[in-house]
Formats: sequence, C-alpha cells, structure tokens
Amino acid sequence: MAKKDIAGAAIKLHKKLGGKIVIESAMQVKSRDDLSLIYTPGVAAVSSLLHKNKELARDYTIKGKMIAVISDGSAVLGLGNIGPYGALPVMEGKCALFKTFADVGAFPIVLDTTSPRLRSASTQEQMDFIVETICAIAPVFGGINLEDIAAPKCFYIEEELKKRLDIPVMHDDQHGTAVVILAALINAAKVVKKDFKKLKVVVSGAGAAGTASVKLLLKAGIKDIVVLDRKGIVDVSRKEPHKKELAKNTNPRKISGGLQEALAGADVLLGVSGPGLATATDIKLMAKRAIVFAMANPTPEITPEEAKKGGAAVIGTGRSDYPNQINNSLVFPGIFRGALDNKVRQITDEMKIKAAKNLAELVKNPTALRVVPGPFDKGVSQAVARAVKES
Amino acid sequence: MAKKDIAGAAIKLHKKLGGKIVIESAMQVKSRDDLSLIYTPGVAAVSSLLHKNKELARDYTIKGKMIAVISDGSAVLGLGNIGPYGALPVMEGKCALFKTFADVGAFPIVLDTTSPRLRSASTQEQMDFIVETICAIAPVFGGINLEDIAAPKCFYIEEELKKRLDIPVMHDDQHGTAVVILAALINAAKVVKKDFKKLKVVVSGAGAAGTASVKLLLKAGIKDIVVLDRKGIVDVSRKEPHKKELAKNTNPRKISGGLQEALAGADVLLGVSGPGLATATDIKLMAKRAIVFAMANPTPEITPEEAKKGGAAVIGTGRSDYPNQINNSLVFPGIFRGALDNKVRQITDEMKIKAAKNLAELVKNPTALRVVPGPFDKGVSQAVARAVKES
Repeated sequence: MAKKDIAGAAIKLHKKLGGKIVIESAMQVKSRDDLSLIYTPGVAAVSSLLHKNKELARDYTIKGKMIAVISDGSAVLGLGNIGPYGALPVMEGKCALFKTFADVGAFPIVLDTTSPRLRSASTQEQMDFIVETICAIAPVFGGINLEDIAAPKCFYIEEELKKRLDIPVMHDDQHGTAVVILAALINAAKVVKKDFKKLKVVVSGAGAAGTASVKLLLKAGIKDIVVLDRKGIVDVSRKEPHKKELAKNTNPRKISGGLQEALAGADVLLGVSGPGLATATDIKLMAKRAIVFAMANPTPEITPEEAKKGGAAVIGTGRSDYPNQINNSLVFPGIFRGALDNKVRQITDEMKIKAAKNLAELVKNPTALRVVPGPFDKGVSQAVARAVKES
Repeated sequence: MAKKDIAGAAIKLHKKLGGKIVIESAMQVKSRDDLSLIYTPGVAAVSSLLHKNKELARDYTIKGKMIAVISDGSAVLGLGNIGPYGALPVMEGKCALFKTFADVGAFPIVLDTTSPRLRSASTQEQMDFIVETICAIAPVFGGINLEDIAAPKCFYIEEELKKRLDIPVMHDDQHGTAVVILAALINAAKVVKKDFKKLKVVVSGAGAAGTASVKLLLKAGIKDIVVLDRKGIVDVSRKEPHKKELAKNTNPRKISGGLQEALAGADVLLGVSGPGLATATDIKLMAKRAIVFAMANPTPEITPEEAKKGGAAVIGTGRSDYPNQINNSLVFPGIFRGALDNKVRQITDEMKIKAAKNLAELVKNPTALRVVPGPFDKGVSQAVARAVKES
C-alpha cells in the first residue's frame, strides 16, 4: 500500500475497532454461587491471603500475567512530543502485539503530565512525578514496558524505577532496539565474514536507542565504537551526563570531526537518528563489505538503494517493505513472556545478549537479505523468552 | 456452601484462574499488512489525529469502552486497610462483573501509597497524591469507578477528581449503594403501603455509604432522616466537615440520644455500619410495618430472623443467601454502560434517582420478599444505563 493509503486505511480500521484490545472475564459468571466465589464473600479469603503475603499476587491475580505499556507521549514514533492521547494508539498497538506474538496480557497507560502544578515544575520534578505515578500503580503489574519517553528523561526514569520496584522494568526504545540490533549484527558479521568483536562500528544518534545499543554492543565484546550526534563525534568534552558516559567508553582511536571522519574505514553504520544522514559517497568511505542498518521510521537515515550504490554489502531498515526489518517487535513480547514465566525482578544485560544470540540463531543460514527472522516466523518469542531462563 | 467452604473454594478458583480478567487483541494480527495498520507506520496517522483532537480518543481507542476500577486498599470489604495487594482480587472481581453484567471493559488499578515520602506525609498530601496519580492515568479511561477508599478521604478524592477530569467519576461505595437502597426503599414503601416521601428513616453509619445514601434520599424527597454513628445521633455539635453537613440536613425533630431514641416511631432502619447494632427489642420501638435493611457484609447489623421477631415487615441484607439482596452490583455496571454510551462527563443526582426508579420498576409486583431484582435478572443493567440517557 502507498503511504497515503495506509494512513487512510489505518484511521478507518481504528474507528471500526474502537480500541485494539478488549477485556474479557476469565470465567463465565452465571450464578449466585459463581458470584460468591469471584466476588463477596469468597474473595475476602483471597484478599486476606495477599495482604499477608504480597508475593502470592503473582499466582492469584492478573499480576502474574500483566504488563503495563507506559508512555508520557514525549517521543512518539517520529512524531515527537504529542502527549498522552497521541501516544495511546501506539501503546494499544503494542499491547495487541504482546498478545499476538507471545500471549502476554498488556495494558496501555498514557500519562497526562500537564497539570498546572507540573507545567511550572522543573524537569527533575516532572521525572520524579512520572516515577512516583508508575510506582503507585505497579502492584497490578508483573512488569513495566516503558515506551516513547524522550531522552535523556528516559534514562533517569528507568533507572529509578529499577531501583524502587520488585518487577522488571524495560524501556523498549532502548533495550528492545539494542537487542534486535545485536542479533542482526551477529548474523551480518557472519555474512560479510568478519570477526564480530573486531567490527568498527559507527552509531549515528545518542538518544535512547543509540545509547542503549552502544552499551549492549560493548558488553557483547565490540571494542571500537564511534558515536555521532548533531554536534559530530561524541567525545569527552561533552557536558550531558549520558553523553559524557558514552564518550568514556567509545571512540578508542580518539578521532574527531563528523560523519565522514567517523565512517572512514568503519565496518558498520547504525542509524538511530533520522532521515538525511548519509549518501552513497559517505558509504564509499567505509571498509569493504560494509554493513548499514538505517533504522529511522518511516524514512531511514539513508535509503537501501543509496546504501547499495555506496557499496554496502548488508543493508537493514526498520521498515516492513525492505528486507531485514530490524524492529523491536521481535524482542519485547518474548522478553516479558520470559520475565513473567520465570518471575524475574530484573532484565539483565546477560538476558539481553542471550536473547540476541537466540534470535540470531533462528536464522539458520544468514544471507545479505536475511540477517533477522521476520515477526511472524515461528519460534521468535519462544527463543527470546528462553533467554531469560538461560541467563 | 458454608462460610469456610466458600473461602477454600474461592482460594482454589483464584489460583486456577490466575487473574479474573484477560486481555485479548481486538483483531487477529496475521500479516505484515495488519501490522502496518495497527502499528507503524499506519498508527502514526491516528496518533496525529488524536494529538490534534483528544475528544476523538473516545472513538478511536479503548477510552470509549474502558473504565478504571481504582482503590488504595484503605477500606476493603469488611477487612479494613489491607493495602493494594489485598484490594486487587476485589477490584478484579468488580471488573469481571462489569463485563458480565453490562459488557463494559474495566481494568483494576490498586495504588501503593506507602513510599517513604508518602508515609511521612500529611493526610492532605496523601489525598492529593491519589488525586494526581488518577488524573495522570485518566487519559486511557472513559470513566473512573473508585472503590473501597476509606471515609472521609473518599469524599475529598471524589470531589477533586470530578472537578479536574472530563470523564465521569463515581465512588461506588457511596453512590452505587445509595442508588440500590433508594430502589429498594421505593418498592418497600409500596409493600407496606406508606407514602415514600413521608417515611421516617434512621441511617446507622455515617461513612461513605451512609453519607451518600442520606444525600440521595433527601434529594428523592424524604424529609425525616436521623443519622447515627458510634457517638449516637449526629447533630450540629459535630466537628468533622461531612458530619456537620449531614447534621444540617437531617434530624428535623432535633432529637438526641442513641439508637433507641432514633428508632422510636421510625418507619425505616438502614444499616450501613456493622454487626451487632440492634435486637428484636429495638425493632419493636419502630412504627408498625417497619422496613429494615441491614447491609453490613458478611454479618448484617441485625439478622433477618431477629428483625422479624421484632416485627419488621420488609427485611433486606447485602447477602445472597437471604431474600432482598441490596447490593451495588445491580448499579455500577449499568451506570457506566450508560455513561460510556452517552459520553457523559458527570454522573448526576438526577441520573442516580432515575436509575433507582428504573431498577424499582423492574420488579412488577413488589412483595416483602422481593423489593429489588436479582443480579442475574434480565434487563437490570439496561434499565440502569437508560437512566443516564433519560436524565
């Protein structure tokens, strides 16, 4: 479908559905006896039990099956800060995918942070409000999937929640993306016959996805990463805390400059920034058999056609209409399926790396046109879920 | 079933179900084309639309179909302040009833208000935190059903939310109970052949249910109401704001004393306090053909047997094992069904009174043993929902 047709069809479908998830009763309630078990007076016995031992909530309530998909609407898709109502259709869509791909119950929560008090509050107060709100509603959920929260807010919010809650918290824009990038890169390295750990990687974008991907690639053994943002190569002169930290662990050759300086001799370009980043001429600066993942949606950092013209050997995007769709929908359903099944309290880096490896292994014979499985391939969520147990 | 058997069976059933509601995807997602409509890139068009016009969220998202059932766990059933985990099974049960009785989607939210900051905060700060949290998550919902929040906190929280939100907010312990009491009283007056508006009513209990019931009965035309709490008849000497206000509008004969002084010559005793309130001897003080609704659960203020011995002509309880179960499950599903269908922003007193009248009319020929319909009777939720439109 053409872009305009998709927009029109999507609006029509959403109006017809009036919500992409529905609530059902888990059992048919047909008699006064049923009522007396699921509601008063019988439920009082369950309430007393959980009051005494809250750990049992995972077995006796929806907590053991339910993920919250939470956004403040501050960085929705490529649309920016469009608020809770703009975010809601995306979060609902995510919940539908949780169910479809991994049979995980998920409920969308979009936060209105525009009360008069909050509008005049500092960024720190706003972040603390989001943290406190999520902590307050956490008892219902077995995990928290944060979504479309702008950087650098998202780093603090996720870290605080991880400290304060006893359920796993994952900002999907960061870690879902990082896992699928790692999976794709493991297979792409095989295709171009290069040693994974020796890859020279350039990451364009130091936001949520870029920052988390760099951290995970380092943890997975890659040593030479150069990060770019709008000001050029991120180095130790930067002031923002998360960029300072990035600089500390990247750019081992201490190069400076912009895209072209970074790309010279690089094996991999990861685009997690936005359209209009690079041309074929830029790609020609890279090493032979270069890997280019241009993941901005809907318009990639460089079109696959242009990347090919520049000599790239393996090309991926975030889109479904090109080969190698590198999309976090391969990851989040399985990660939380595994987290719920194993009652884990944290999604660790080890779990993420194992998830990426399991995902990569699902592609038996990786080729330039197939470095990751498709979202509807069999076994995707199971492979990712297994990683939680295996780590 | 005996009480002990019900408790055991309820615990077993809850463990088997692992949650009394489930989330389903509203459509089967089978192909990349489906994905591109419910998720990226198609969903971006819907997000942009709702960002520009948030009113459309009721048509394009779950907002138009979804009620939040929210408790802080401070007054759960007869169990008291048992916190969010204790409250969760009750809220889930309520959500299952919303679906069963009125095909309304409802999701439970239980609030943890025990963070270190909140534990040392004033009651006012705690109430404001609850209000702010609910306002923050409100964009997802088409209505807020507050539940099991202790008095007097519940009054402030409900009032503030009604001021701040553009969706209906109803504290069910107050207004659901008030509506079903009014319905039962309309029919009971017919059974004992007394003029409804001239009934002399004694209300034992000045908490959430008592306070709201008094207000609604006054609004429905009853003039002589005497309210009792632990200290006796509520009069103008009281200090707490909600009791001061009650005193202003009740006790027109300015009597003082306790239960016996209040009951002398009264036509109706409404028990919304707790067990052990009255004996047959007390009931004998009432006027001929007295009406006794003893609604404490699971142990009523006076047993139906004892009330009968005292000469009561119409007797109701909150229990399912006696005739005349006066329970708010007759009310809340239909009220919110009507509120969602008609996109109303407030549940007004007029709607509540009309709902009570419609409920009462469902019983074609009221008798001493049948003044309200049963929860599984046909047309209950529809009769209540209609009231929202008719008012």
